[in-house]
Amino acid sequence: MLKGKDILNTAQFSLQELNLIMNTAANFEKRVKSGEIIRNMEGQVVASLFFEPSTRTRLSFETAANRLGARVISVADAKSSSAAKGESLADTIRTVDGYADVIVMRHPMNGSAQIAADNASHPVINAGDGTGQHPTQALLDLYTIRKERGVLGGQTITFLGDLKNGRTVHSLGYFMALCKNKMIFVSPKSLKMPAKITEDLRSRGAEIEETEDVEKALSVSDMVYVTRVQRERFEDPEEYEKVKGVYVINRAMIKKAKKGITILHPLPRVDEIATDVDNYEGAAYFRQAHNGVYIRMALLALISGSI
Amino acid sequence: MLKGKDILNTAQFSLQELNLIMNTAANFEKRVKSGEIIRNMEGQVVASLFFEPSTRTRLSFETAANRLGARVISVADAKSSSAAKGESLADTIRTVDGYADVIVMRHPMNGSAQIAADNASHPVINAGDGTGQHPTQALLDLYTIRKERGVLGGQTITFLGDLKNGRTVHSLGYFMALCKNKMIFVSPKSLKMPAKITEDLRSRGAEIEETEDVEKALSVSDMVYVTRVQRERFEDPEEYEKVKGVYVINRAMIKKAKKGITILHPLPRVDEIATDVDNYEGAAYFRQAHNGVYIRMALLALISGSI
Amino acid sequence: MLKGKDILNTAQFSLQELNLIMNTAANFEKRVKSGEIIRNMEGQVVASLFFEPSTRTRLSFETAANRLGARVISVADAKSSSAAKGESLADTIRTVDGYADVIVMRHPMNGSAQIAADNASHPVINAGDGTGQHPTQALLDLYTIRKERGVLGGQTITFLGDLKNGRTVHSLGYFMALCKNKMIFVSPKSLKMPAKITEDLRSRGAEIEETEDVEKALSVSDMVYVTRVQRERFEDPEEYEKVKGVYVINRAMIKKAKKGITILHPLPRVDEIATDVDNYEGAAYFRQAHNGVYIRMALLALISGSI
Repeated sequence: MLKGKDILNTAQFSLQELNLIMNTAANFEKRVKSGEIIRNMEGQVVASLFFEPSTRTRLSFETAANRLGARVISVADAKSSSAAKGESLADTIRTVDGYADVIVMRHPMNGSAQIAADNASHPVINAGDGTGQHPTQALLDLYTIRKERGVLGGQTITFLGDLKNGRTVHSLGYFMALCKNKMIFVSPKSLKMPAKITEDLRSRGAEIEETEDVEKALSVSDMVYVTRVQRERFEDPEEYEKVKGVYVINRAMIKKAKKGITILHPLPRVDEIATDVDNYEGAAYFRQAHNGVYIRMALLALISGSI
Repeated sequence: MLKGKDILNTAQFSLQELNLIMNTAANFEKRVKSGEIIRNMEGQVVASLFFEPSTRTRLSFETAANRLGARVISVADAKSSSAAKGESLADTIRTVDGYADVIVMRHPMNGSAQIAADNASHPVINAGDGTGQHPTQALLDLYTIRKERGVLGGQTITFLGDLKNGRTVHSLGYFMALCKNKMIFVSPKSLKMPAKITEDLRSRGAEIEETEDVEKALSVSDMVYVTRVQRERFEDPEEYEKVKGVYVINRAMIKKAKKGITILHPLPRVDEIATDVDNYEGAAYFRQAHNGVYIRMALLALISGSI
Repeated sequence: MLKGKDILNTAQFSLQELNLIMNTAANFEKRVKSGEIIRNMEGQVVASLFFEPSTRTRLSFETAANRLGARVISVADAKSSSAAKGESLADTIRTVDGYADVIVMRHPMNGSAQIAADNASHPVINAGDGTGQHPTQALLDLYTIRKERGVLGGQTITFLGDLKNGRTVHSLGYFMALCKNKMIFVSPKSLKMPAKITEDLRSRGAEIEETEDVEKALSVSDMVYVTRVQRERFEDPEEYEKVKGVYVINRAMIKKAKKGITILHPLPRVDEIATDVDNYEGAAYFRQAHNGVYIRMALLALISGSI
């Protein structure tokens, strides 16, 4: 169903495709954990092009490719790339397309993933293009929700923190609407979810509530998706000082939250989740990062036609 | 015939060796394209040492090694190397020689490839040493000519652009003489092919014409090898302004050129070939880049004795 | 015996464990040199995290992992890491722990290896943590002594140069005491072995002599372990000028030394061993670097339970 397809954005997936990806990931997770040596992509080459550094995402993709038996060619740093010599992205991709069977790319420019897909005969996975899309993050978030909660829909999720700038919450919001979850958006006034996105989600039938009251939101939520509120996003430093403590999850807040609440975070975390939360059993963020390997194995195997 | 040998410069090859390399590359190309899992170098380690960044060439070599089943250890950036701690190149190579079965090296210093070969017990491939040699580029150019034109000799090739500073054209010029092709050198006055090289080629029996008339040259050429004319190479900026448009290949120029002319370029391209040329069927430059993988597979397999 | 264990410091090893490591390394060396394709770690992933650049050590570990059939995910440069985004080392390790089966880490901070081990469920190898420990260097030194001298104990070894700052000599000193070797410490007054270490070694029964007389020390030594005396370590530049020539090993000094003396150096070497020593048959330092691959193969295979 996905053979030969590019993975560029979250809006491209049907519910049937999402289920295929989740099931394939679950199968790979089982096989990896059983110690099986997997050779689905033996003889294939995956290009891992990170024109913007991201150790976490790069290593996750490269682990996935290696665990499938593929080989990896890697660019970890834009400074050593041909772009530094004035080459266009289209030309770089046309060249790498002759080396690799699948291209994974992170690039600082919005829309760059589409340019890559337009110039490659092989499938392209968007690993983040500027403030645009980062679809594999949303897929691993979804896979984590399925594993942690047992179901994908019919629940309430709070999105907390900087909802204005976070591409992660925009992408996941789309999936949450698709899977019929209620969403609560909690953020400082100046970092609210863009009205365009909220309206779009509502037009797709999503039930959405917006508030600044963290405690109340958490008391009715099955899950909370935390993102960082960065000082540099505030024009008015006084506003930052006023809100910074409010958007930090700690053990005391969890006690007041709905029992069994699942804590999600795309990582890296700085101080928006206190470390005393780490051994709370609903703290799913490191499991979430690990799930990325299986989701990426599923995508690589499916689009390369290796499964 | 090539087992255990270093690949340091273009002048080292006999016509018999060139044919072996081309045939081996053609065979690997066929095997890769058929989807075969190739294991000729399984269990071997290739060191890919790029002390001067070059994403294109590094990824091409690393793809070649991986497609042969070898493993790769990689230095993509001089700043993280031991050289930064004051170690001599000889010592660095003597150390890596104990890790790897083949060493591929790019280094900014002329003559560095010879130093590496002198200090390694394993074969060394020169992937570019300063303004010196870059023999695998010339070999992939030759392989491309064989594929695109069906023959290696008896044709006319125009070298266009900066012929003074391009190590690529110097190397390929040698091969073109060896294969009995007529050469036309077209360049701005200040960027002419060095007299020493032209004389050397003529002493080997090459027929050479020098001109500034691009149109006339292209009207009688089977191939044109384009290189970039860089503003910073001109002492007199007015001369640059006068010539810059003349040395750009576009669709209009191809219409006036000999029918079926093959366009070659070592890439990266900046603006010396207009993008409207890209879908002209004789535009061979991206195929040329892809051919590099098969040529490098052939060299790695031959010198490591894995074929 | 070592399955699942972290390799954090030299003091952790029993003599029985040292023998197991040496014997395992010798076995892998034999298998690699026979051309055998080794698959002990096929299907496993080794994370090679160099948050401080070290080409030599990184490539040695990555060669070892590859020669065992494992796959490698690699961070060669701290600047492209998540730490740059303010993430704690503990969080970085907890994430990578979900990708890899073994974690190799170099980090500029003393004690960082212990933090990594505390946060990983998989075994961690300390590849150097600040001025702290670098246990695999001491192990490869020991393996080299066994190969070069035929025995591990009952000999005299001179440690020469900067004994104050060299973590290498501190670690190896501990092993030399364990194996009942006599040690002579030769250094400029201001770069003497720290009294704390000398006392600790003596309390373990080691016979130790301290002197500034290089010639006399070498005349009774079976081995000399050379480290670099760096200008920047001296507060008084005159003292540096006075001693710099004294601590350089050259061919003339070897003639006056005990016959058959073995020269060791952790590399990189700058000018503390003259290049005219390189073809002296007792000059073991490049063989020493190569031995690191087999020691690291032994450690990776043992702690991952792959042997």
